[in-house]
Amino acid sequence: MAEPKATPLLKDELDIVIPTIRNLDFLEMWRPFFEQYHLIIVQDGDPSKTIKVPVGFDYELYNRNDINRILGPKASCISFKDSACRCFGYMVSKKKYIYTIDDDCFVAKDPTGKDINALEQHIKNLLSPSTPHFFNTLYDPYREGADFVRGYPFSMREGIPTAVSHGLWLNIPDYDAPTQLVKPRERNTRYVDAVMTIPKGTLFPMCGMNLGFNRDLIGPAMYFGLMGDGQPIGRYDDMWAGWCTKVICDHLNFGIKTGLPYIWHSKASNPFVNLKKEYKGIYWQEDIIPFFQSVKLPKECVTVQQCYIELAKEVKAKLSDIDPYFTKLADAMVTWIEAWDELNPSGEAASATASK
Amino acid sequence: MAEPKATPLLKDELDIVIPTIRNLDFLEMWRPFFEQYHLIIVQDGDPSKTIKVPVGFDYELYNRNDINRILGPKASCISFKDSACRCFGYMVSKKKYIYTIDDDCFVAKDPTGKDINALEQHIKNLLSPSTPHFFNTLYDPYREGADFVRGYPFSMREGIPTAVSHGLWLNIPDYDAPTQLVKPRERNTRYVDAVMTIPKGTLFPMCGMNLGFNRDLIGPAMYFGLMGDGQPIGRYDDMWAGWCTKVICDHLNFGIKTGLPYIWHSKASNPFVNLKKEYKGIYWQEDIIPFFQSVKLPKECVTVQQCYIELAKEVKAKLSDIDPYFTKLADAMVTWIEAWDELNPSGEAASATASK
Repeated sequence: MAEPKATPLLKDELDIVIPTIRNLDFLEMWRPFFEQYHLIIVQDGDPSKTIKVPVGFDYELYNRNDINRILGPKASCISFKDSACRCFGYMVSKKKYIYTIDDDCFVAKDPTGKDINALEQHIKNLLSPSTPHFFNTLYDPYREGADFVRGYPFSMREGIPTAVSHGLWLNIPDYDAPTQLVKPRERNTRYVDAVMTIPKGTLFPMCGMNLGFNRDLIGPAMYFGLMGDGQPIGRYDDMWAGWCTKVICDHLNFGIKTGLPYIWHSKASNPFVNLKKEYKGIYWQEDIIPFFQSVKLPKECVTVQQCYIELAKEVKAKLSDIDPYFTKLADAMVTWIEAWDELNPSGEAASATASK
Repeated sequence: MAEPKATPLLKDELDIVIPTIRNLDFLEMWRPFFEQYHLIIVQDGDPSKTIKVPVGFDYELYNRNDINRILGPKASCISFKDSACRCFGYMVSKKKYIYTIDDDCFVAKDPTGKDINALEQHIKNLLSPSTPHFFNTLYDPYREGADFVRGYPFSMREGIPTAVSHGLWLNIPDYDAPTQLVKPRERNTRYVDAVMTIPKGTLFPMCGMNLGFNRDLIGPAMYFGLMGDGQPIGRYDDMWAGWCTKVICDHLNFGIKTGLPYIWHSKASNPFVNLKKEYKGIYWQEDIIPFFQSVKLPKECVTVQQCYIELAKEVKAKLSDIDPYFTKLADAMVTWIEAWDELNPSGEAASATASK
């Protein structure tokens, strides 16, 4: 099945959400691709520090004072001094689609040497259906030059709506601290020219570095948890969002795609610092993942919010034994939904505006 | 995790099984890669016709008379005048690994223009573990230059044994007749440099054109069903084997990999002939696939044979309503296992010989 010839830009339907920009080159490098979009920058640390945004960009910037002012006591659900704060940007956006990217991610080149327009590929992924119910061996059947192979049931070829597009990274791979320590020189040089749907019932490690999603379909599940200042773990913000999102997508029959586009991940974070942030997560995930693999959402849950509240209850009931942190996290999940609904009084309104 | 530096050739542990060779160039083209292996050629049609095998190849050839002589009345489970007869070769082999390939599959070139040694890549796939319980976004973590990404549970990084390596096709994609008719000019030119495990619980359309497997682990499940002469369908032989194999691998905790290696599929089969062979399958698979998606094997089934016999019972009970063909097929599945066990009196013996 051929993808649409010209990919719509979704100029008025997509916000780019970026946590603190420390790297001045970052926006200059992305200017040809980002300048026509609205940026939401969420500053993770000291509100007195100023972020310089080059001229020509349309943006809004939120620091901790803004978050506290806008959310009041509910601001407690937004992480401080951690890039997990970016999810505040998802909440204040009024657009249908979100693209989020880290400031150490630069424009990658495809094997022919051409600059990769990551955003355009995310849009392609999000606008074409997903196929989580049966595996297509030639990968995304909706890409140009591909299709469903022999033996793919015809009744499943319409696919289902795509909620998430998970992009990858050339150069520095997204490894945990132990792997970084063991393989300090490993670089990802393999350009895999594929997009694929992650099958139903299968969890994956969702990385927030280069991520697009349909906010109308799945936004309230994209909570990046409690990380950073005052919290016992870090670097599990996107993982948490990924586990919750996948379970809810499977329940509501939305798809998640992974693969293209690549960005160039320029800088490995410090493995020693990462180890300190991660070590509890590395231990805890051995219990968290079986939990998410087995959790069942009741069929009465038909909205993302309902699913997410149900998941918060399950987290409190089943994970609090691991550490009191999960009781706090479960409460924060509920606060997040309350804050989301306060800022987005009608889910349909946002959707209706966006699809104009 | 790095794959072994030098891939073992498994010269004495692998048989290449080929259905009728109509194309004289076929073996010449593969000579540099196949000459050191033993070939088992299974002739699908008229036993009076002779297949010419070029000098220098070590082979055994079976025609219908041989199959009838060796299996007696149980020969009824082997298809006649259809390449599904190749599974007889799996049964008479005494090796640990099987590679099967069609005679219209030639040596493909990688993007650098180098000939692809398909067999070597299948061996790499089969000798490295699979990871069906959690998705790795950088694909096969055991390939050189790759690993498990952040958030992949450490307890799952050992992986599980790989039973099947499913290779792909450049040039003519493996499409069904309707897609062939609609897209007569489509060629697969996309070289996707990836190998991946098909997640647990997900079915896939297994193509028999370019397929490797561990006969000791999964051999008895690789039955290609009743196709061709006197049967109501064709071109579902490999699909049938794939559905059964995937369900049994999931139950016994073996993995299935797909992706590399590519072969060059030289010739599209006639779409009109294919449509005639396929049309019932296209219709029936809408019921067969939900059946395989929901079938549960009891935990008492701990060998492939036990699983397969159980599956035959379920096929008879649940699919016979579609068409009397499935009653016949279920009986043939049982006959196949009886014949397998007769020719392979002790599963362990083959394994022990092979691992010497």
